[in-house]
Amino acid sequence: MAPMRVTALAGGVGAAKFLRGLVRATEPENVTIIGNTGDDAVFHNLHVSPDLDIVTYTLAGLVDDTLGWGIKQDTTHALDQMAGLGLETWFTLKDRDIGTHMARTTWLADGVPLSEVTDRIRRGLDVAARIIPMTDDPVRTRIVTSEGLTREFQEYFVRYRHSEEVAEVHFEGAETATPAPGVIDAISAAQRIIICPSNPVISIGPILAVPGIREALRERRDAVFAISPIVQGAALKGPAEKLLPVVGAEASASAVAGLYQDFCGTFIVDYRDAPEAGKIEDLGMRVMVLETVMETPGISRQLAKEILAAP
Amino acid sequence: MAPMRVTALAGGVGAAKFLRGLVRATEPENVTIIGNTGDDAVFHNLHVSPDLDIVTYTLAGLVDDTLGWGIKQDTTHALDQMAGLGLETWFTLKDRDIGTHMARTTWLADGVPLSEVTDRIRRGLDVAARIIPMTDDPVRTRIVTSEGLTREFQEYFVRYRHSEEVAEVHFEGAETATPAPGVIDAISAAQRIIICPSNPVISIGPILAVPGIREALRERRDAVFAISPIVQGAALKGPAEKLLPVVGAEASASAVAGLYQDFCGTFIVDYRDAPEAGKIEDLGMRVMVLETVMETPGISRQLAKEILAAP
Repeated sequence: MAPMRVTALAGGVGAAKFLRGLVRATEPENVTIIGNTGDDAVFHNLHVSPDLDIVTYTLAGLVDDTLGWGIKQDTTHALDQMAGLGLETWFTLKDRDIGTHMARTTWLADGVPLSEVTDRIRRGLDVAARIIPMTDDPVRTRIVTSEGLTREFQEYFVRYRHSEEVAEVHFEGAETATPAPGVIDAISAAQRIIICPSNPVISIGPILAVPGIREALRERRDAVFAISPIVQGAALKGPAEKLLPVVGAEASASAVAGLYQDFCGTFIVDYRDAPEAGKIEDLGMRVMVLETVMETPGISRQLAKEILAAP
Repeated sequence: MAPMRVTALAGGVGAAKFLRGLVRATEPENVTIIGNTGDDAVFHNLHVSPDLDIVTYTLAGLVDDTLGWGIKQDTTHALDQMAGLGLETWFTLKDRDIGTHMARTTWLADGVPLSEVTDRIRRGLDVAARIIPMTDDPVRTRIVTSEGLTREFQEYFVRYRHSEEVAEVHFEGAETATPAPGVIDAISAAQRIIICPSNPVISIGPILAVPGIREALRERRDAVFAISPIVQGAALKGPAEKLLPVVGAEASASAVAGLYQDFCGTFIVDYRDAPEAGKIEDLGMRVMVLETVMETPGISRQLAKEILAAP
């Protein structure tokens, strides 16, 4: 039996943990990852794609496991120099990582689309799985706080450590964006489409906001499997429970299922949330109850295997 | 007696060696350095000012003494990452140094003029002497080879290691450039103006090509002292002897004096070139014969002292 073609929608750290298991549970060449670029930003004239890099570095075996992002054993010489010169350095850019951003920025300035840039980087780092940004167009997640301030995503997320109360989330540029080359094909041609356990509002939300992607998923609803990013009412990492109410959902696995109901046929909840299964089935979705807290690479791989083996 | 105000015109490594002595021979607060920006370039979207940085790093005590440029004990993590991703990395950018370029690029993008950026950098690195770029406008040195190829300066100098035969040197943008704020004042107000032992064609040449600077020097001819960059018919470093014929001069101290004749009252030759003194006097210039080969910091300081003490 030929290994199945798998496509995954991914945010950052939570997604990367799962994807590390996925590429060990099947042939990585048959895996396509559609990544979030809503949190892209320009720092000191360098184009940074945090979610794409987390996924790429993780699959390359380079990621700093303690942080979940960046490259292990990286140094901060450039940043120290900048700080010494009086620049704001609240966004951590380490030296090897800066090399990636310099390459990306150079290619983008030469007119190479982000999808091709992302492909060059993953090939350069010997990653066998394909990684495609959701779009080559600029889409920027903006956070409006309850005090009425509009924050760029990284300001909200890193500078203010997602401590501000959020009133609204916008995806600037999404209305006129088009899916990057290969995105719609990857959804149409996959035997299994997996929504990684990423923040539904700020990681999966921007991907779904690109016109055409949600519609393509709806047409493949039976093939779409989503892993709940919420376990026992809380996110394992990040501000999901504070952001879900902004889109009218409570912080529960079943509420996330509700957000995905129109395009997702199977919803995976952690065994700790088994009691939620009934509510999700009432939404017209199939439920799988599995261990989803990926404390070891073995758990990630097992989770991926079970999803790939599901009838 | 108040220490005299001194202004120096400077290129890169040769100038920096002399300036290190100059700031120890007088109060560094009274020294103003006008730097060459004709070799500025943009690499991987970062604005690099090699000559300004060599001078600043040297006076900050940070320079890599073996190379003569860059910061000592710097690392190449970003560059290694870029090379791994397949980018051309013939221009060496080390990590701490990249921090300087990121700061410069960020400020320039914010609309801060290069003169203010340069001032922030030298203050940030605790350099007491003022360092001013010759102009805030873009002036770019271009080399036309005898094969008719036009090279950006760093291509000629670093990539092809100044091995190509040169037919012409141009300073693109010079005609419409204006001296940076403080440049003309520094020339008018100084008791002593020193032309550092830098390449007359590609280091001092671009400074003199900015309209108004050469004229201001002419008015101060009696206060202008130039140190020959040529000793016994050769430059200590760099391609001066290959470039002098391009501007119609031979590679000798007296030929360099001829290029400076209109604005320079006193020319300093190395004692090894004492026999050239007569020819230079015939040009209507005063001659000082001194040790100019700065093999130790003590020699630089002594050279500076003798120039400052000259009647």
